[in-house]
Amino acid sequence: MQYHLNGFRAGDPEVFDPAPDGPAGSGLPECVDVLIVGCGPAGLTLAAQLAAFPEISTRIVERKSGPMERGQADGISCRSMEMFNAFGFADTVKRQGYWVNETTFWKANPGQPEHIMRTGRVQDVEDGLSEMPHMILNQARVHDMYLSVMAKSPSRLVPDYGLEVVAVKTDEDGGDYPVAVTLQRVDAAATPADADRLAKEPGGTVTVRAKYVVGCDGARSNVRREIGLELKGDSANQAWGVMDVLAVTDFPDIRCKTLIQASSGGNILIIPREGGYLLRFYVELGSLGAGERLARDEITVDRLIETVQRTFRPYSFAVKEVVWWSVYEIGQRLSDRFDDVAEGEDRPPRIFIAGDACHTHSPKAGQGMNVSMGDAFNLGWKLVSVLKGRSSPDLLSTYSAERQAVARDLIEFDRQWAKIISERATAETDAAGEAPKFQRYFVEHGRYTAGMSVAYEPSVLTGAATWQSLAPGFPVGERFHSAPVIRLADAKPMEIGDTVKADARWRIYAFTPAEDPAAEGSAIRKLCDFLAADPASPVRHHTSRGLDVDAVIDLRAVFQQPAHDIALETMPAILLPNKGRLGLVDYEKIFCADGASGQDIFDLRHVDRQNGCLVVVRPDQYVAHILPLDAHDELVRFFAGVLLPAAAA
Amino acid sequence: MQYHLNGFRAGDPEVFDPAPDGPAGSGLPECVDVLIVGCGPAGLTLAAQLAAFPEISTRIVERKSGPMERGQADGISCRSMEMFNAFGFADTVKRQGYWVNETTFWKANPGQPEHIMRTGRVQDVEDGLSEMPHMILNQARVHDMYLSVMAKSPSRLVPDYGLEVVAVKTDEDGGDYPVAVTLQRVDAAATPADADRLAKEPGGTVTVRAKYVVGCDGARSNVRREIGLELKGDSANQAWGVMDVLAVTDFPDIRCKTLIQASSGGNILIIPREGGYLLRFYVELGSLGAGERLARDEITVDRLIETVQRTFRPYSFAVKEVVWWSVYEIGQRLSDRFDDVAEGEDRPPRIFIAGDACHTHSPKAGQGMNVSMGDAFNLGWKLVSVLKGRSSPDLLSTYSAERQAVARDLIEFDRQWAKIISERATAETDAAGEAPKFQRYFVEHGRYTAGMSVAYEPSVLTGAATWQSLAPGFPVGERFHSAPVIRLADAKPMEIGDTVKADARWRIYAFTPAEDPAAEGSAIRKLCDFLAADPASPVRHHTSRGLDVDAVIDLRAVFQQPAHDIALETMPAILLPNKGRLGLVDYEKIFCADGASGQDIFDLRHVDRQNGCLVVVRPDQYVAHILPLDAHDELVRFFAGVLLPAAAA
Ligand SMILES: Cc1cc2nc3c(=O)[nH]c(=O)nc-3n(C[C@H](O)[C@H](O)[C@H](O)COP(=O)(O)OP(=O)(O)OC[C@H]3O[C@@H](n4cnc5c(N)ncnc54)[C@H](O)[C@@H]3O)c2cc1C
Ligand SMILES: Cc1cc2nc3c(=O)[nH]c(=O)nc-3n(C[C@H](O)[C@H](O)[C@H](O)COP(=O)(O)OP(=O)(O)OC[C@H]3O[C@@H](n4cnc5c(N)ncnc54)[C@H](O)[C@@H]3O)c2cc1C
Repeated sequence: MQYHLNGFRAGDPEVFDPAPDGPAGSGLPECVDVLIVGCGPAGLTLAAQLAAFPEISTRIVERKSGPMERGQADGISCRSMEMFNAFGFADTVKRQGYWVNETTFWKANPGQPEHIMRTGRVQDVEDGLSEMPHMILNQARVHDMYLSVMAKSPSRLVPDYGLEVVAVKTDEDGGDYPVAVTLQRVDAAATPADADRLAKEPGGTVTVRAKYVVGCDGARSNVRREIGLELKGDSANQAWGVMDVLAVTDFPDIRCKTLIQASSGGNILIIPREGGYLLRFYVELGSLGAGERLARDEITVDRLIETVQRTFRPYSFAVKEVVWWSVYEIGQRLSDRFDDVAEGEDRPPRIFIAGDACHTHSPKAGQGMNVSMGDAFNLGWKLVSVLKGRSSPDLLSTYSAERQAVARDLIEFDRQWAKIISERATAETDAAGEAPKFQRYFVEHGRYTAGMSVAYEPSVLTGAATWQSLAPGFPVGERFHSAPVIRLADAKPMEIGDTVKADARWRIYAFTPAEDPAAEGSAIRKLCDFLAADPASPVRHHTSRGLDVDAVIDLRAVFQQPAHDIALETMPAILLPNKGRLGLVDYEKIFCADGASGQDIFDLRHVDRQNGCLVVVRPDQYVAHILPLDAHDELVRFFAGVLLPAAAA
Repeated sequence: MQYHLNGFRAGDPEVFDPAPDGPAGSGLPECVDVLIVGCGPAGLTLAAQLAAFPEISTRIVERKSGPMERGQADGISCRSMEMFNAFGFADTVKRQGYWVNETTFWKANPGQPEHIMRTGRVQDVEDGLSEMPHMILNQARVHDMYLSVMAKSPSRLVPDYGLEVVAVKTDEDGGDYPVAVTLQRVDAAATPADADRLAKEPGGTVTVRAKYVVGCDGARSNVRREIGLELKGDSANQAWGVMDVLAVTDFPDIRCKTLIQASSGGNILIIPREGGYLLRFYVELGSLGAGERLARDEITVDRLIETVQRTFRPYSFAVKEVVWWSVYEIGQRLSDRFDDVAEGEDRPPRIFIAGDACHTHSPKAGQGMNVSMGDAFNLGWKLVSVLKGRSSPDLLSTYSAERQAVARDLIEFDRQWAKIISERATAETDAAGEAPKFQRYFVEHGRYTAGMSVAYEPSVLTGAATWQSLAPGFPVGERFHSAPVIRLADAKPMEIGDTVKADARWRIYAFTPAEDPAAEGSAIRKLCDFLAADPASPVRHHTSRGLDVDAVIDLRAVFQQPAHDIALETMPAILLPNKGRLGLVDYEKIFCADGASGQDIFDLRHVDRQNGCLVVVRPDQYVAHILPLDAHDELVRFFAGVLLPAAAA
């Protein structure tokens, strides 16, 4: 962590100074830049991202009267952990959560069909897929961590609870704040200030005007309805019973993620939970036809417990405390668009939807929370860029395009996965001696469930794969895959991925060729000279004067030589920039491959040692482009497509 | 982390429920079990340890008006990090602090004596010495972390600031609380409740009666004076200027710990600090004769800066902000005893001193904060054991015996180290082609400065080394050296050291022989049968009925077989104990060697694969004993020496 740049400040460096004009993180003003609707994982990811920018006024409203305490989703993919790391709380999740290390598979014992037997166990995440583990932690705790980031941010952002969005209307002539959002008080939980304003309005409603509105309001989204969208897809729902319990059992794999395909068809998924004792069970309750609703009163938690007991034979299962349970009826459905721009219209969007408001699917692949947070992380930095005047509002159109495609894949994956899990374990599906189909499918799709298969298509944000061969291990459009490095100035062994924070900045990693970097005319010198001094330099062109040189585009270098072969004093100035009020030197831009550990980043990511390359990384950790080190013009063109010329300031 | 054992509880699991009778963590009552004097690293370590036990009433008083904000010590050894891990905040220190990876050595360039040159750089901590890094973080931030542990503890312990201890008297006839402590109000900072009481007493003093008093009140300790002890040793002091600055320099090793031995004799130690910009400089100011004081007004921060500038040539050095500076005059001094039991007296102690109250030495080896915390961690669990009735008060005598020996070594080490650093870099001290003496000494003593050379002598707490050959990598009397393992129930790769929490419990690690553990008559079965069922079992004998089986002695097993070769369902019940109000199963007692990673704990610690062994670990993480797996009688005898028979309950 870097801090004290503008002078020493006592106390916790993770608690930022409140914004100088006074943080105003709660209570509803007449106008806000961004109004977020809904405090689920999507809304809170976005709020945490925006809260870092106190110059952007953000509010987040929630119908419920306070923070969630239990239930709902709990799967945190490796990819989401990488994102949590950018927000600074991956450590806490690692310490408090359950680590999914192994998944075990059980089915009916062919010799004794009323008993189950283990058919296999597989490592849950393939080696080297991510520097982060696959975790399980209650959605409520994830919310808490975002709330804490928000509370410690310079905005001191706090949700406004007890307020329901009932209408959202855009009036493009409405000036700077064209979207009018009508909120209704749900209960006495509104803050006193809001209550005052609500009391003054007829019918207990209040109207807030916003530049942008983001509906993170879940599967029954009002914001979606207001912009005329609907979830389309299978009309049939799948019904699952889900329960979080404290229980005693002699089932030996109870602390591993476990899939049981019983002969009775009573498929069960076990998710061991944080804290070492808690358990989640998903119990399949079958499919429902179109429009059919589950006979709710027939489903009781006792029935779920009995189903587990029946399926678990010969093992015992005694529940000591039911912490939460629910019946989760869900179909695979998707919205055509994630914003308010109709087909054929050509204008930047004003209203967005994210998370369950856009897509619903089964809980079986553990994607609900993850994909929702991924939506918000994709949108967050774009809103920051536009609201800070760094990018044109057109950038916002890429959100729906990118995330709708991700959701489409998700729905497709989920459909197949749900089908395979729900198949009975029969002789037909599994050839003799072969692992059961669900186990094979699980292994094959590990990258998918870990959140690593998101690959954005070429666009203004994602370059063509022309120079992909310079670094095949950093596929363009996929997330920037971390690897170990040594920081030159202090010899710290670390992950290069730790350098990507949730700060809405672009990054350029210059992997240098096998030459002496200090030599006159070396590729890194030429690059640095260009970026530091050339009038065409994207760093100069897109960064307002008076800001730190890395405020918009953050350049880092990675050398293939051992650290002791690189002399810090020979490094170009832009890699040792003077920053902040005091002009202090930032020593954290230069890295070397960690050859000694056997984990050389050039080898791991197949970087061309002869030529090196540039890896351009988006603020949301995705690889935007791979370019030759001397492709200065292409670099200029790429950034001209996403960033505006900086204001003179 | 384990939680939810006694039922689900929403919210942060690291914030404990307050004690049921109401936490009373601040404000001075008439009587307390333990009164801690001084909020330095020693006092706060002790307070954080005791705060976990709300049934023990603890108070901590501090003369200053509030928490420290800057300055003083900053070195955190690997050993202290292991201890922080037991308190749950090692992660935060790793995230926020500076990692000492490399130390560099500079001296005058023989060809150009007014310039300095690098003579070497060495890895700061040898590979495998600890699972924890060597860190730098301001003492003030370390205090904050302890204060946070205390605030989240069931006791909700908060220091009482603005109160100075002026007298401490023992009256053995004084009933349950024989020590009378007189406190004087220092300023208006006393809490209102204390202020009330103080107002009622003549002269603004108040008397608190305590069972035990611990003077963590620094080098000028009043508690030490009150029990008639003094610091003895060199009458001469060494004077060092120390400053924390934000500065700009082109000195290339500025982000590495650096020792500069300049020809002018102006020796300088650079400690890069947390946050990436802050720097600490120690500037040697020479020795003072007995009774001689530094001419304080001659020393200004400008003079320190000039000295650095002169020594730094040919490098520049421009200070942008002075955060803190001080002149640190210190001699190597030591108290004969660390408690109130005079030579020849035979009774358990009532009053203790810890930290700088017992020993002072130069800051150069970075030991001040570490050894002080080590003192308190040694004492904390002993006070808990005695106050909970688990151990006889005689146990408390081991504190002075053990820690005085540690301090003696420290003083000896510091004396040599100070001498070597202060020697001029001359031809006589360094043979040609050899690394300079100070560099060699530094490397040779890496284990020492990392805090790993503490080795308690045989005593009631430390068994004889009779069976040391069963596990030469776990030296009896030294700290339990962690290594990677796989947890059986959930296949989690982790450090075995993570199982030792600051919870005042004993631990037995049973490393099992290369046999089938499930077989009738296997060594682990026999051990478990004995511990679970034999009337002589120390687990049964020392644990009150009604408590969890692991409440006092926590048994863990480590198998050398790969995890998939061990069937959980064949494990003895005491390794899968039912615990808590609901009788839930604790799955975190069984581990396997992590052969696949090439980091097999049996290999790393040289555990006898044929016979296995028992490693008995003290609550403060030191190895108390190594025994054969079947040495049941010796195990009984060992625990009978430190624990009382449990109350019938
Ligand atoms: C009852 C339930 C049980 C679930 N169980 C599981 C499970 O077992 N496993 C699993 O993987 N996933 C489960 N999910 C799904 C998972 O929680 C979601 O995929 C995930 O939370 C999506 O995040 P989100 O932020 O898009 O929406 P949500 O988490 O649904 O958050 C939407 C938020 O918006 C608020 N809101 C809605 N409308 C308005 C409005 N008009 N004005 C103001 N606020 C509004 C809601 O109160 C809610 O807090 C469950 C979801 C629900 C609702
Ligand atoms: C001014 C100063 C500068 C230092 N600089 C360095 C340095 O640069 N590098 C380094 O390694 N070490 C330094 N040290 C030493 C290092 O801080 C100590 O080794 C370490 O703090 C010892 O911890 P402790 O808990 O034993 O005592 P301390 O940290 O000294 O804490 C003692 C506490 O007790 C309080 N107290 C004292 N008397 C009473 C009383 N009668 N009643 C109530 N409260 C009382 C004090 O206010 C203080 O808060 C410095 C110490 C001091 C005092």
